[in-house]
Amino acid sequence: MEKEKTIMDYDTVSLDDEDSAVVIIDQTLLPGRTELIRLKTAEEIWNAIYLLKVRGAPAIGVTAAFGIYLLAKACREENYDRFLAEFRNNKEYLDSSRPTAVNLSWALNRMERVVTENADCPVPQIVSLLKREAEEIRDEDIRVCRKIGEYGLTLVKKGDGILTHCNAGQLATVRYGTATAPIYLGQERGYGFHVYADETRPLLQGARLTAFELLSSGVDVTLICDNMASTVMKNGWVNAVFVGCDRVAANGDTANKIGTSGVAILAAHYGIPFYVCAPTSTIDLSTPTGDKIRIEERKPEEVSEMWYRERMAPEGIKIFNPAFDVTDHSLITGIVTEYGVLRAPFEEAFRKLPGKRD
Amino acid sequence: MEKEKTIMDYDTVSLDDEDSAVVIIDQTLLPGRTELIRLKTAEEIWNAIYLLKVRGAPAIGVTAAFGIYLLAKACREENYDRFLAEFRNNKEYLDSSRPTAVNLSWALNRMERVVTENADCPVPQIVSLLKREAEEIRDEDIRVCRKIGEYGLTLVKKGDGILTHCNAGQLATVRYGTATAPIYLGQERGYGFHVYADETRPLLQGARLTAFELLSSGVDVTLICDNMASTVMKNGWVNAVFVGCDRVAANGDTANKIGTSGVAILAAHYGIPFYVCAPTSTIDLSTPTGDKIRIEERKPEEVSEMWYRERMAPEGIKIFNPAFDVTDHSLITGIVTEYGVLRAPFEEAFRKLPGKRD
Repeated sequence: MEKEKTIMDYDTVSLDDEDSAVVIIDQTLLPGRTELIRLKTAEEIWNAIYLLKVRGAPAIGVTAAFGIYLLAKACREENYDRFLAEFRNNKEYLDSSRPTAVNLSWALNRMERVVTENADCPVPQIVSLLKREAEEIRDEDIRVCRKIGEYGLTLVKKGDGILTHCNAGQLATVRYGTATAPIYLGQERGYGFHVYADETRPLLQGARLTAFELLSSGVDVTLICDNMASTVMKNGWVNAVFVGCDRVAANGDTANKIGTSGVAILAAHYGIPFYVCAPTSTIDLSTPTGDKIRIEERKPEEVSEMWYRERMAPEGIKIFNPAFDVTDHSLITGIVTEYGVLRAPFEEAFRKLPGKRD
Repeated sequence: MEKEKTIMDYDTVSLDDEDSAVVIIDQTLLPGRTELIRLKTAEEIWNAIYLLKVRGAPAIGVTAAFGIYLLAKACREENYDRFLAEFRNNKEYLDSSRPTAVNLSWALNRMERVVTENADCPVPQIVSLLKREAEEIRDEDIRVCRKIGEYGLTLVKKGDGILTHCNAGQLATVRYGTATAPIYLGQERGYGFHVYADETRPLLQGARLTAFELLSSGVDVTLICDNMASTVMKNGWVNAVFVGCDRVAANGDTANKIGTSGVAILAAHYGIPFYVCAPTSTIDLSTPTGDKIRIEERKPEEVSEMWYRERMAPEGIKIFNPAFDVTDHSLITGIVTEYGVLRAPFEEAFRKLPGKRD
């Protein structure tokens, strides 16, 4: 009999051994239940992303990469042109599942390049190359998160208080997380951080996911409601804020979970450094500024009744439910990437990154 | 058969016709059910305040005033000294139900003065005077809220967007509310405001109460999660913020529902005026600054499970759950009282108020 695994023993996204399904932890069931689910069809993958069974920009990217590989493999089309046409259909469909995080289209574009750059290969060989590329995207994600952890750790000291918003944790990536990577590395090395996790309404990713995974790893973590961050900062309990991101524009403006811009404004007010943890895959130089980032609006029921025993807002009430907001680059102390900590002017710093040159 | 009443047809707190109970709307059942409950014993009154069946600084004050009158009437003690001793016991007990709002002790002190200043009267006459005083506290509350509405209305113009936090509405007072008073008067006069109500975690007074009462009155109101205020402000939808308060210190620092200080910091960042609506009974010159205000901490379960179908945070997680925070006076554009809009330096403005002179 196998020893019971904890959440930290699983990759958030993986390919099963039979090469037949993308395996994810169904995050809508956490923290009550840890359940692995298997995604095989395009619809299953689309729904898992749309319904947030898998969420977090990097994890969505890896899911899409494994997913489109499986769909390409299942296609069994020997003719390259028809294979490419079906590939692009699937790509477009998966890409429509969520609009804000750039990693989704970034991963799908990377997979498409494997197809177009190997047009002279037999289709089965292209399918093999697609598998290799998806695995490389996953492996890169793990390496990148670990590097972000190393660089992030240089920004804090033992015993520091760290505030984070939403979940940019292991559950938002394959392992380590982005915003949590410095916390996990610090935990391994006895830094003794005190972490404050914003619960992150409406879907409570902070309460359900971040609090859960940090607690599982033995980190000292305290859960607060989003509107308590000002008090926690005023009390002097927070030395640094680490958050993840869904898309960073060319000027450093950053889209991340709704509420992030408010946390950044509070941090600036209280003189606390505010760091965005961003794999460079999240930096999108084709988007000049934050106001060009499309912000997903989600269903009002997420605010008025989801998770509730009964409706908690009156029938007929208007609800505004944006899933993300944009933090102005002027509020960001540094962007922590796998290549180091970038400082303003970000436009210039981004241009020096590998693969981001004009 | 009576025409069905809406929430707006009831005083939030009243004395029944038989002079036997304080009648309140049980606010923990809103917006699902409008139910009046009758409070007779000291324990019933204490619990109703502690459990937030009645909440909002002014409404708590009126409840305590009616409550201690009923307890004094029930005491049937002819001897003044023993009557006073029992009165003070009851006063101390009711005063212990919640620590932050000053109106509770303010109302109870006012009632006690009726007893001590009429020591030479027969006890039954003192009891009559207590009833008159409690009714006067209620009537004043109604007049004061209406005046706050008139003065508040001078600060905004037709079609403005107004953001409010928690519930400083009719349900927090006897009628009109404080922060909502300008909104209700504007509604009567065709101002066409667009109101944004923060849901106000953890107990959702914004979603359950403010959204409910404004919607019932035909006001154009949109519910948002607390962490969406930054986006709504950035979008240019908010021309002014109106909030209530639980205690204003001598320097203008203001305790109000948790999250208020964050809203004030956001408003300052976006250049939006931030107004505190405060009956002068809420201004406590005996508290020099905000850091001397005792902030109530409440049970962690309010964050982790109350209202939920299932536990939404992992078992064993630490939770910090302060019910209020303090907004620094430097972030407050104006304090709207029944005597007009006060501006900084607040210390000086307070000294000119009737009854607040040294």
